Amino acid sequence: VEIIVHNPFVPETVEGWSLLHQTFRIRWPELRRLSAAARVELAAEAVARLRTEINVDLGRTILVQLLGHKGDLMLIHARRSFDDLSQAQLELTQANLFDLLEPTMSYLSIVELGMYEMTAKIHEQLGAQSLELGSEAYESAFDAAMDVQRSRVLGRLFPELPARRHVCFYPMNKRRGEAKNWYLVPFDDRAAMMREHGHIGRGYSGRVNQIISGSMGLDDWEWGVDLFADDPLVFKKLIYEMRFDRASAEYAEFGPFYVGLQFAPSRLADLLDGRTPQLVTHIPAD
Amino acid sequence: VEIIVHNPFVPETVEGWSLLHQTFRIRWPELRRLSAAARVELAAEAVARLRTEINVDLGRTILVQLLGHKGDLMLIHARRSFDDLSQAQLELTQANLFDLLEPTMSYLSIVELGMYEMTAKIHEQLGAQSLELGSEAYESAFDAAMDVQRSRVLGRLFPELPARRHVCFYPMNKRRGEAKNWYLVPFDDRAAMMREHGHIGRGYSGRVNQIISGSMGLDDWEWGVDLFADDPLVFKKLIYEMRFDRASAEYAEFGPFYVGLQFAPSRLADLLDGRTPQLVTHIPAD
Amino acid sequence: VEIIVHNPFVPETVEGWSLLHQTFRIRWPELRRLSAAARVELAAEAVARLRTEINVDLGRTILVQLLGHKGDLMLIHARRSFDDLSQAQLELTQANLFDLLEPTMSYLSIVELGMYEMTAKIHEQLGAQSLELGSEAYESAFDAAMDVQRSRVLGRLFPELPARRHVCFYPMNKRRGEAKNWYLVPFDDRAAMMREHGHIGRGYSGRVNQIISGSMGLDDWEWGVDLFADDPLVFKKLIYEMRFDRASAEYAEFGPFYVGLQFAPSRLADLLDGRTPQLVTHIPAD
Amino acid sequence: VEIIVHNPFVPETVEGWSLLHQTFRIRWPELRRLSAAARVELAAEAVARLRTEINVDLGRTILVQLLGHKGDLMLIHARRSFDDLSQAQLELTQANLFDLLEPTMSYLSIVELGMYEMTAKIHEQLGAQSLELGSEAYESAFDAAMDVQRSRVLGRLFPELPARRHVCFYPMNKRRGEAKNWYLVPFDDRAAMMREHGHIGRGYSGRVNQIISGSMGLDDWEWGVDLFADDPLVFKKLIYEMRFDRASAEYAEFGPFYVGLQFAPSRLADLLDGRTPQLVTHIPAD
Amino acid sequence: VEIIVHNPFVPETVEGWSLLHQTFRIRWPELRRLSAAARVELAAEAVARLRTEINVDLGRTILVQLLGHKGDLMLIHARRSFDDLSQAQLELTQANLFDLLEPTMSYLSIVELGMYEMTAKIHEQLGAQSLELGSEAYESAFDAAMDVQRSRVLGRLFPELPARRHVCFYPMNKRRGEAKNWYLVPFDDRAAMMREHGHIGRGYSGRVNQIISGSMGLDDWEWGVDLFADDPLVFKKLIYEMRFDRASAEYAEFGPFYVGLQFAPSRLADLLDGRTPQLVTHIPAD
Repeated sequence: VEIIVHNPFVPETVEGWSLLHQTFRIRWPELRRLSAAARVELAAEAVARLRTEINVDLGRTILVQLLGHKGDLMLIHARRSFDDLSQAQLELTQANLFDLLEPTMSYLSIVELGMYEMTAKIHEQLGAQSLELGSEAYESAFDAAMDVQRSRVLGRLFPELPARRHVCFYPMNKRRGEAKNWYLVPFDDRAAMMREHGHIGRGYSGRVNQIISGSMGLDDWEWGVDLFADDPLVFKKLIYEMRFDRASAEYAEFGPFYVGLQFAPSRLADLLDGRTPQLVTHIPAD
Repeated sequence: VEIIVHNPFVPETVEGWSLLHQTFRIRWPELRRLSAAARVELAAEAVARLRTEINVDLGRTILVQLLGHKGDLMLIHARRSFDDLSQAQLELTQANLFDLLEPTMSYLSIVELGMYEMTAKIHEQLGAQSLELGSEAYESAFDAAMDVQRSRVLGRLFPELPARRHVCFYPMNKRRGEAKNWYLVPFDDRAAMMREHGHIGRGYSGRVNQIISGSMGLDDWEWGVDLFADDPLVFKKLIYEMRFDRASAEYAEFGPFYVGLQFAPSRLADLLDGRTPQLVTHIPAD
Repeated sequence: VEIIVHNPFVPETVEGWSLLHQTFRIRWPELRRLSAAARVELAAEAVARLRTEINVDLGRTILVQLLGHKGDLMLIHARRSFDDLSQAQLELTQANLFDLLEPTMSYLSIVELGMYEMTAKIHEQLGAQSLELGSEAYESAFDAAMDVQRSRVLGRLFPELPARRHVCFYPMNKRRGEAKNWYLVPFDDRAAMMREHGHIGRGYSGRVNQIISGSMGLDDWEWGVDLFADDPLVFKKLIYEMRFDRASAEYAEFGPFYVGLQFAPSRLADLLDGRTPQLVTHIPAD
Repeated sequence: VEIIVHNPFVPETVEGWSLLHQTFRIRWPELRRLSAAARVELAAEAVARLRTEINVDLGRTILVQLLGHKGDLMLIHARRSFDDLSQAQLELTQANLFDLLEPTMSYLSIVELGMYEMTAKIHEQLGAQSLELGSEAYESAFDAAMDVQRSRVLGRLFPELPARRHVCFYPMNKRRGEAKNWYLVPFDDRAAMMREHGHIGRGYSGRVNQIISGSMGLDDWEWGVDLFADDPLVFKKLIYEMRFDRASAEYAEFGPFYVGLQFAPSRLADLLDGRTPQLVTHIPAD
Repeated sequence: VEIIVHNPFVPETVEGWSLLHQTFRIRWPELRRLSAAARVELAAEAVARLRTEINVDLGRTILVQLLGHKGDLMLIHARRSFDDLSQAQLELTQANLFDLLEPTMSYLSIVELGMYEMTAKIHEQLGAQSLELGSEAYESAFDAAMDVQRSRVLGRLFPELPARRHVCFYPMNKRRGEAKNWYLVPFDDRAAMMREHGHIGRGYSGRVNQIISGSMGLDDWEWGVDLFADDPLVFKKLIYEMRFDRASAEYAEFGPFYVGLQFAPSRLADLLDGRTPQLVTHIPAD
């Protein structure tokens, strides 16, 4: 039996949904030349190919109308595996709507909870039991303790994607500069900074939902962040305040930001018609 | 009731218009092949879809002819919400002119006044009243004081976009370098640098109007800056002088610059005809 | 006879397969308009032009379906020479499928084993024999010792590309910063860091296969890394843990990541049909 | 009356022509399919739309055939105002030749003379007269002194663009690094470095002409530099020698270089025919 | 008479061929649809327009099939002047083959020998003769001494481009960092580092040919490097070993690498047919 040795310098993580973000520009001129009925049909066929209903077991796909030139449409696919993500990606290529879409960005990641506090605590407890790091007893006790943690946070690993109007996605790194290098900071200092960071976040609870996903070894940045809020000003206020906490001020590097309006899949035809599509399905379009 | 705790290290901001900048290249060869009448019609239909008249409640859109290859046309949309910006963006995609436009850049932000002086002053006053930071009394008193400030500067939060010929837009960051990091500078030093920065700006009052918008959590830089002037040399002189103040010299990072000539929406057909369109509507075109 | 002087500051390397990675976007709309039979034919003709069967002497080509917008298809060609890689590259351009492919990335490298430990050991042994560095005796003894090493690791220089479902490719550099510069670190410190790095890697043995290739003088980064695993979470866990070892934390710079699903060449038609192609050939497609 | 306060830390500048550089790729295949007569007509119509004759009042446009893939044609427009530059830019879009041009770069700037020596001297003289910085007397005396300087150098502010064969354009910044920051260097040190820099330049007088333009607030770098020489080796020798002076070695950041052959506007048809066009108009083309 | 003052801090250089590198992607689908005869004709016409025979006076053009997606074809033009390079560039645009080529990169430079040793030696000798730097006597004696040097190395300034199979081109800079800045290093230290650098290079003599060209003031990097070898592994070994010498480890910055197979111009049709073209002309193609 192979033993996985838990490294006390590395915070344990637990993982949930596999995520694929995709953004597209829409070819408006070609779309405008179609009849309204044809646009309705395009929308209906595309949505039928995506898994857009809430499904706790299989995951689902949400739709966001983006602001600005980086894209008109963002899809966020949450699935149980990379094979499922692959099928979601391929399914869209088979929609007639795909002829009018130009891919502009994508991001591959896995929902992740970083567990600085628990990592330290479990190592401490096992150390107190005189178990030796790397021994089979230590490591299987560690695994067992982590399993408990994982089941405790299962709902946060496989969350429903929140039905809030405004969505903000951005990737980020922890800095590995020549003078400031997150990965050389002692564990306890990193844990303290993450605590402070989380504390600021909790000041916004109720006003914003956040889903963190890890992308080391998967995409070009280390993490992806999705924020969901009713009021987009919250994105600005939250990120501004966090920029002054040490974890962000000294160690965060931010990639491009993608911001837009989540809408009900059944309203996709509105978007194709040039009308801002609504999130709530029961409001009439005109 | 949730309490929002005001962080004394973070300058308070108050916000106004939601802004979307969009730049486009024009497909001149296709345009030139149209009849002059067709170009007039294209221009009229496009302008009718944009909200170009001054409207203090709903906001409006201004048009700028850009110099250089980054684009031929820049639109600046000021609106009350992201839903309204979305509709402005979509409305343009429905114009026949959109067939001849290639999006090259966009920028999403919210008009912002940073209030270093007031933040310090209110915290000082509440501290002097022996209120405790984070207590309900403190925070609601802070909210009330900020509301007063917000109404005081309301006109600057929802400004008319100035009817000046030359427009300069650029995004910027405060540096978060390994040695020089704005977000680690003590509050009072930052306030002093912003005071000096504002002092230089005031030396140009009357010659230039400036609209600052915040874009943390919204777009790829932290702020957007719009300058409006009758004489474009003022852009160069102002930015050169400011480059030597500490806030800029040590801490500012500048993105690309977009410079052009604002023109009356009713003169869009002139641009499409290859004639520099005028800002003033009553000057005959030829 | 020319003597090649072995530089004791430079770890010796031994080399195997020449590698060419190629990624392509697929033009789905054009592909979808073809009949299913035509897609089967396209796939069969393309695969016939690639050398996809395992061949220890000549090398072979494997196929990977990529996730995200960086490409839909990645080919990894392993060959005995650059002439052979050239022919693999040209052969694909002659396939009818090439009309529907858009190249997005490539990477040229040579499988490499870096031999910090052996380099030090051989220099030490020859020094102990009172041979003088740079003398014909010393250098030919060194060459002979390296030849022994090379034959010892021959299987790792010309490995079969592992038949595992998930593939991750990324290029990387060792940092040459102004303060932290790998190439100025003393040999023994570098060797110690590589030892620690290898130690972490061995903790994942069985769960991941790794092929390192050198690309100095060949492509834009210094090394290419290919990882193969049944579970893609292993990529994330491995790279996260390694980010805290000194060789990575202080000295590694990472390029873009390409992640996807390896599939059997005979299943290429499934991909062209919009169905996730399987790695195992005997599972029926529907 | 508003007083403009002259800042003694900021070197005064005086300004001349507004400049717009534009580069284009030529669509050779389409051009080659035209008849020679059609190419002559295309060239003649395009040149007629540009202001190519020397005109000290209104400015003019020169033509450069670029070497390499950044473009085939560079236009340098010198005009009295941004409105005039705008019209030059628009006029070209109306030429039939524009159908065969792809814009690749542009640069917007204003011819500038930086006056380190005079700035210091005037401040010193006014200080010696016991005038107080910021007082109306001081500032209007300063303005008057600058007016004298401006008229003294008027010819250098509105220079004829030199009729030399080889042209080199590049943009540049003064570094604002974390350790080396031009804008934090004391005025006298900057003045001394600029003196040394100018001294090297004078060693090349007669062999090269230089036009410096300022682009802060106008384009993405701080300055544009145009060099004109009969022998292109002079560009290499001059820039190499200057790279060792302190102003360049420590503080200069260089953008992309655009190098080519200036030619007579009347020879544009030669270029379109695939023959290197000459600068001198009276040499027969074949 | 104007005196050119030789700057003792700047190593003298002597110059030879003007070089233009060009890379192109080939439009394979369009090419494949042509008949084999048509491809032969395209190849013959294109080669006839290039000067591909060895010509010591006028220079020539060599052809390289590139590996990877950066391009399929690289041309290296060596000529006596920029006018000649311009004509080579234009001549190709007139070939029918140009319809199937997409330019992807170019590089403009001049073959250069840097003369650290001779610069120091001549200054020393003239100083010993009590001549004064900057005096007419000193500078004309210096010019005369350099002329002697130039004729001594004439063959290396106008070299034949080596007929070796593998070609590697890359541009590079000497670092001008905030802490490590080549241009601030004392002359003698730079000379010592260049000596060490050359020493490593000489260890590869016979196995690799190197042509250095200077591109300051001409293109976006400071130097271009062309390597020619029978075995491409030599590129990797050489560049790896050099990365540890001080000149490279501390001060070199490398641009993108272009690697491929040189082939006989008469074999261009083979490439267009999708067969790796040979360097030697007398080997039959099939």
